[in-house]
Amino acid sequence: MRFWLECRKCGKQISFHINAGACSCGGALRVEYDLELVKHTLSKESLNNRIASMWRYAELLPIEKTENIITMGEGFTPLVPLTKAEQALPLGKLWVKREEQNPTGSFKARGFSVALSIANEYGIHKVAVNSNGNAASALAAYAGFAGMEAYVFLPKDCPWLIIEECLHYGAHTYLVDGLIQDAGKLIREGEQEQKWYNVGTMKEPGRAEGKKTMGLEIAEQLHWKLPEVIIYPTGGGSGVIGMWNAFQQLKQLGFIQGDLPRIVCIQETGCQPIVTALQNNDLFSPQSEDVNSSPTGMRVPYPPDGQLLVSIIRQSGGTALAVSQEEIRQAQLSLGKLGISSSPEGAATWAGLIRLLDQGGISRYNEVVLFNTSHAMKYRQFSHRTLPVVKSYKEWVGLNPS
Amino acid sequence: MRFWLECRKCGKQISFHINAGACSCGGALRVEYDLELVKHTLSKESLNNRIASMWRYAELLPIEKTENIITMGEGFTPLVPLTKAEQALPLGKLWVKREEQNPTGSFKARGFSVALSIANEYGIHKVAVNSNGNAASALAAYAGFAGMEAYVFLPKDCPWLIIEECLHYGAHTYLVDGLIQDAGKLIREGEQEQKWYNVGTMKEPGRAEGKKTMGLEIAEQLHWKLPEVIIYPTGGGSGVIGMWNAFQQLKQLGFIQGDLPRIVCIQETGCQPIVTALQNNDLFSPQSEDVNSSPTGMRVPYPPDGQLLVSIIRQSGGTALAVSQEEIRQAQLSLGKLGISSSPEGAATWAGLIRLLDQGGISRYNEVVLFNTSHAMKYRQFSHRTLPVVKSYKEWVGLNPS
Ligand SMILES: Cc1ncc(COP(=O)(O)O)c(C=O)c1O
Ligand SMILES: Cc1ncc(COP(=O)(O)O)c(C=O)c1O
Ligand SMILES: [Zn+2]
Ligand SMILES: [Zn+2]
Repeated sequence: MRFWLECRKCGKQISFHINAGACSCGGALRVEYDLELVKHTLSKESLNNRIASMWRYAELLPIEKTENIITMGEGFTPLVPLTKAEQALPLGKLWVKREEQNPTGSFKARGFSVALSIANEYGIHKVAVNSNGNAASALAAYAGFAGMEAYVFLPKDCPWLIIEECLHYGAHTYLVDGLIQDAGKLIREGEQEQKWYNVGTMKEPGRAEGKKTMGLEIAEQLHWKLPEVIIYPTGGGSGVIGMWNAFQQLKQLGFIQGDLPRIVCIQETGCQPIVTALQNNDLFSPQSEDVNSSPTGMRVPYPPDGQLLVSIIRQSGGTALAVSQEEIRQAQLSLGKLGISSSPEGAATWAGLIRLLDQGGISRYNEVVLFNTSHAMKYRQFSHRTLPVVKSYKEWVGLNPS
Repeated sequence: MRFWLECRKCGKQISFHINAGACSCGGALRVEYDLELVKHTLSKESLNNRIASMWRYAELLPIEKTENIITMGEGFTPLVPLTKAEQALPLGKLWVKREEQNPTGSFKARGFSVALSIANEYGIHKVAVNSNGNAASALAAYAGFAGMEAYVFLPKDCPWLIIEECLHYGAHTYLVDGLIQDAGKLIREGEQEQKWYNVGTMKEPGRAEGKKTMGLEIAEQLHWKLPEVIIYPTGGGSGVIGMWNAFQQLKQLGFIQGDLPRIVCIQETGCQPIVTALQNNDLFSPQSEDVNSSPTGMRVPYPPDGQLLVSIIRQSGGTALAVSQEEIRQAQLSLGKLGISSSPEGAATWAGLIRLLDQGGISRYNEVVLFNTSHAMKYRQFSHRTLPVVKSYKEWVGLNPS
C-alpha cells in the first residue's frame, strides 16, 4: 500500500477512504505514504523526465489510478528572482512564487486537482465548497473539466470578477450574508439532503495534499536547498500545513537536509487569529470579535487547524504578522512596478517582508521566498477612469510637453 | 557566431544588430542560427534538465549573454488534453495550449521577454508599443521588471481591465482615436524626438523569435510528433510565422520528421484580410474597407507580413476562417463549461474547430491543437449582475426547491 490515513492525535492507521472523516478518537486524519516504496520510482534524477505540473510528484499524492487524475496544467509555477528588489533591499536573495499563473489564477487549483481526482476515483458527481472566492472559482473550473456539478457559496462581498468566473465555469453560485464559516455551515446543513460532497478546507484529504506540492516545488526549483524564510498569506492555513508536510517528507526521502525555513504567516489587521495566538502564549482560539478586514483569502476567523499552524510557525522559528489594508495597497503598487501582478494576499507578503526588514527579522544573507497566491486582476473594482484620447503624435506631444 | 540576420528576399547575411532595420534590397530580415553549433549543446535529452520556461531553448534565441535575459516565468505553458470534448467530437485528439497561464495572462509575454532581453543587451531604457491590448500589458510588465520606461498606445475601445493592467505596471498609457495601425503611426512619428525603441509587431527581431517557442514547446510536449492541425487566432501573424519557423528549425536539427501541421488561421468577421487573401488567389492586401470586428488581438487590418502568412497557410495545406462575434461568444461558453477560461481569441479557435468539423475539414483520426492565447478575465465588461443572497440552508432550499 502506497498511502493510508493516520490520526494526528493517537497515531492510529486506517486505510484510505474518501469518507473516512475523523479518527474514532476525534483526531484529524492525515495521508501518509510508504516512503520506502515511493523511493523505488521517485528520485531527484527521475524528476528530470517528468511533466512540468505538480503531477510530477504523483507518488506523493493519494491517487490510485493515473487515469482518474483530473489535471489541467496546475503547479510547477515559476519561482522568479526579483533581482532589482534584491539589489535594493538588505537581504540575500528574493524570489516570488507565481501562483497566479495556475489555472483560474490562484494556488487553489492545486488543491482541487487532487480533491476532484480523489472524488473521481470514488465516482462522485456533485461537489460543494464555501470559499472567500479563489477556491470557489477553482472548484468551478475543475468540476467543469471533470464533468461534475459544482455548488459554491461565497460571502456576499466577494470580488465581482471572481463571481463572474464561477458562473462562467457553470457552477451553481450563491452569495451568503455572512463570512466563510457561515457559508460552510450552510453546506453542512444541506449535506444530507443535497448529497453534495463537501470539499471545504480540511473537510477532505485532497486539498491539503495538493498544496503540499508548493513545498516540493520550491525545494526542487532551488536545487534541494530551501530558503531561510518563506512568507505566506494565511487564511485557513492549509498552504502552510501542506508545505510543512512536504518538507518533512522530503527530509525522510533524503532529498533535503538541515534546517527548514522559518515560516512567516501574514494576515490582514482585523482578522488575525494566528497573530493573536502567538501573542497569547501560543494558545490558539478562533477570532470571536468583529471581523473587519477586506474580503480576501486571508479573512478566515475560524481556521480549522489553527493550533497546528501555530505549532509549525514556532517549530520553524518563524512568526506571524498582521499588515494593514493600506500597507497591502502600497505593496501592490510596489510589486506592480516590478512587473508582478499581485493579489492583495500576494502583496501582503511583500508588506510583511518590509516589516520584517524594519524589525531586523531578516539578515543580509537570508534567502526569502514570497508567495503570490493569486492574480491582481481577480480583485479589480470597476473604475470609470478616463484617459486622454489622442489622434496623432502632434496631439500627444501637446499633452506631454517635455 | 551562433546567430545573425538574413534577408528573406535576397538572402544576404549581415551580423546581428538591434538597429539593423531592413536589408538594403528592402527585404525583411530574419534571425538565423548556426544549427550545427546549436546541436553541440541542444539535444532532446539535454532538455530534460532544463528550466520549465521558454528559455529552455536558449540556443535558439538571439541573446549573447545569459545575464542579460529578462525572464519572469514565461512559456512552457501546459498543453492540456480536452478529454471530454475529444469523446464528444469526431476527431482523434484535442489539446488546448494554455497561453493564458503566462505572466500578464497572454502569449505576448514570450515576445517581450526576448525583445527586452535584446534591448537590455544594447542598453536601451525607453520602449514603446502600439497594441490591441495584450502586447501593451506584457510590455508594461516586462519593462517594469527590467527597469525600463514603457510607452503604450492602445485603440480607445481597448478592454478596460487591460488598460488598468498597463497602468498598474507603471507604463505611460495612452488611448488613440483609431485602430492599431494609427497607434503605430503615432509611435513612428515620435520616434526621432522621443528616442523610444519601437517594439511594435515585426519592428524588431525579438518578438517573432519569442513566439517561435510556442512551436518548439508543442513539439517537445507531444514527444516530437506534431499534431495534424493547429488552430490559431491570427492578427499580426507573428505567432504563426514564429511557429512555422520553429518547425523548420526542428526539422533541420533532426528533432522532428515528416509532414508539418496544417495551419488554420482564425479571424473575426469584419476584419479578415487573411481569409480574403485566400479567396483572392492568395494575393494578400491589407483590409481597406471598414473594420467592424470587436476589439481583440485579431483585429489587425494591416498585418505587416500578410503575404508570408498566406504562403505558410498554403504550404501547410491549411486554411483561414472568419468566425462571427456570436460564434465566439458561444465558444467562450462551451470552453468555460469545460473548465477553460478563454479570451475571445482563444474561443475563436474553438469556433473555428466546430466549423471545420462541419465542413469535413478534420477526420476522426486527426490530432488538433487549439491556442488559447489569452485569459477570459482580461476582457470582462463590468456587469451589475445581482445574485440572491441567503443566510442559511433553509433559506437556500426555499430558493432552490428540487
Ligand atoms: C489568494 C489566496 N491567498 C491565500 C489564501 C489563504 O490560504 P490558506 O488557506 O492556505 O491559508 C487564500 C485562501 O482563500 C487565497 O485565496
Ligand atoms: C490574445 C491574442 N490572440 C491572438 C493575437 C494575434 O496574434 P498574432 O499577432 O500572432 O497573429 C493577439 C495579438 O494581439 C492577441 O492579443
Ligand atoms: Zn486517533
Ligand atoms: Zn535583401
